[in-house]
Amino acid sequence: MIGIDIGGANLKVVDDAGVHIHYCPLWQGAPLADLLEPYAGSAAVVMSGELADCFATKIEGIRWIVGTVQEAIPDAAFYGTDAAFHTRPVPGLAAANWLASADYLREEYADAVLLDVGSTTADVIPLTRFESLKGLTDTRRLQKQYLVYTGMLRTNVATLLSSVTLDGTVTPVSTEYFAASADAHLVLGHIAPADYTCPTPDNGEKTVDAALRRLARVVCADIDEIGKSGAHQVARQFWEIQRRVIGRAVGRALFQGDAERVITAGIGADLFARELGCATLAQEIGEVSDALPAYAVREVALRRAACD
Amino acid sequence: MIGIDIGGANLKVVDDAGVHIHYCPLWQGAPLADLLEPYAGSAAVVMSGELADCFATKIEGIRWIVGTVQEAIPDAAFYGTDAAFHTRPVPGLAAANWLASADYLREEYADAVLLDVGSTTADVIPLTRFESLKGLTDTRRLQKQYLVYTGMLRTNVATLLSSVTLDGTVTPVSTEYFAASADAHLVLGHIAPADYTCPTPDNGEKTVDAALRRLARVVCADIDEIGKSGAHQVARQFWEIQRRVIGRAVGRALFQGDAERVITAGIGADLFARELGCATLAQEIGEVSDALPAYAVREVALRRAACD
Repeated sequence: MIGIDIGGANLKVVDDAGVHIHYCPLWQGAPLADLLEPYAGSAAVVMSGELADCFATKIEGIRWIVGTVQEAIPDAAFYGTDAAFHTRPVPGLAAANWLASADYLREEYADAVLLDVGSTTADVIPLTRFESLKGLTDTRRLQKQYLVYTGMLRTNVATLLSSVTLDGTVTPVSTEYFAASADAHLVLGHIAPADYTCPTPDNGEKTVDAALRRLARVVCADIDEIGKSGAHQVARQFWEIQRRVIGRAVGRALFQGDAERVITAGIGADLFARELGCATLAQEIGEVSDALPAYAVREVALRRAACD
Repeated sequence: MIGIDIGGANLKVVDDAGVHIHYCPLWQGAPLADLLEPYAGSAAVVMSGELADCFATKIEGIRWIVGTVQEAIPDAAFYGTDAAFHTRPVPGLAAANWLASADYLREEYADAVLLDVGSTTADVIPLTRFESLKGLTDTRRLQKQYLVYTGMLRTNVATLLSSVTLDGTVTPVSTEYFAASADAHLVLGHIAPADYTCPTPDNGEKTVDAALRRLARVVCADIDEIGKSGAHQVARQFWEIQRRVIGRAVGRALFQGDAERVITAGIGADLFARELGCATLAQEIGEVSDALPAYAVREVALRRAACD
């Protein structure tokens, strides 16, 4: 059996060989069926890609995803926010990927908050409260700060940052998508160029110099106007806000969930484990931590099959 | 003689027949030369499109724009932030379009602040201080709040709005480009579908219903989850912030510029004239107010030719 997580931007597959991550932007008509074709057998599936704005409604997205997956893999079962598997496109399949992670980890980490920081979003999941998590929609998760809509790569820097202080002068930013969180994390050394797996905002290079140029443009400047140090300021001040927003959500979940520790997963796991002084899930399960829901939904399905 | 304003997203031409606005996204390789071909004779030109991120630096953008314009219209002169005309691609041609407007209006409106609200940005220009405006870059204008980087159509709603209150519950937003300022202004009745001249974020329809769907997605919801009233809340709360940000910049310019009144131009002129209780420039110069820099640079060039 394989595990599949279909996000709006990425397709993640976990099989016996390991993790396979395919950039697959559904809103650009990415060929999901073709990408799935090489995988055969049975599959356990989670999704969040139904939110992509190529679908007028979530149920339209769910129907398309279920249909497309079942074309390639007829024997596919889909995990829902009721923590059950389904073979039909029901509304409860929307954004259940984080719950699969919680379902997989809830016994071994019953005293923890899981922080899964991906390319686009951060999931903050109190594993202490599994039953209360069932049925939560993305909107409810935003309200509870269980879903923090910023990630390591794809976030428009201007959505978190309204101004930057440059040499002591408050400088409001441009609201264009001139620089991404990946640019900030690249120049700060949090990621390597090879980790920059989404397109750049300007379709330019994934180098530190190109990232600095993009960050300078956030204040409508060339590098020769504000210097590399000015562009670094944009990155640092973005990161200050991003760490604070995510850190606060984690603190709130720890308190409200009566949890004792934090465990991190996703491509931001190492960075946030250092920030928060906690362990990463990768120390236990290895590289599949970068594709936790895909791994988790497979494990949950295998466990249930073993119990049947 | 014609007047030309080359922005990143729009090409605006003013000739004896009136205003011609062409959607012309430079970062997508829009065919500027082809669009200019039908126009002949001499031209006075301003630009801000050199900031588009298809150019590594502003001077690269300036060189490309000057070269492309002169191919179609050899007898073109370019207005710079030194308030002089040039025929060569010099750095001072970057973002001088707002200064051309100020140059044209500074005598007749010597006691006013000009607020020009376009698709993407708002220019706040104290006409009381023309000499002090020369040489200002976009970065300096951001710092002085003379450039407020939000407009009537193209602004990602999530760049101004960090959360929305829905039925009393604070709801942080998604940072995707799910809805544009045009969606908010459309559902609030500030613009008509025909005024929605940029692409929609999801490449969908320019109707109120489609705009409401896009606005609901800003909190990761379908309309049937938060209702049309919820989507209206997103629009209203975006507009509250946008009016406040622009209003504050105008207030600051009035105070610091020792000005006595405000005059509005651009596609947001009527809306902001109502908000601020002031007159629009269109009441004096008609529809060319929507393409003020293109009109102004032509008038400035004609005046100077008359003085020669």
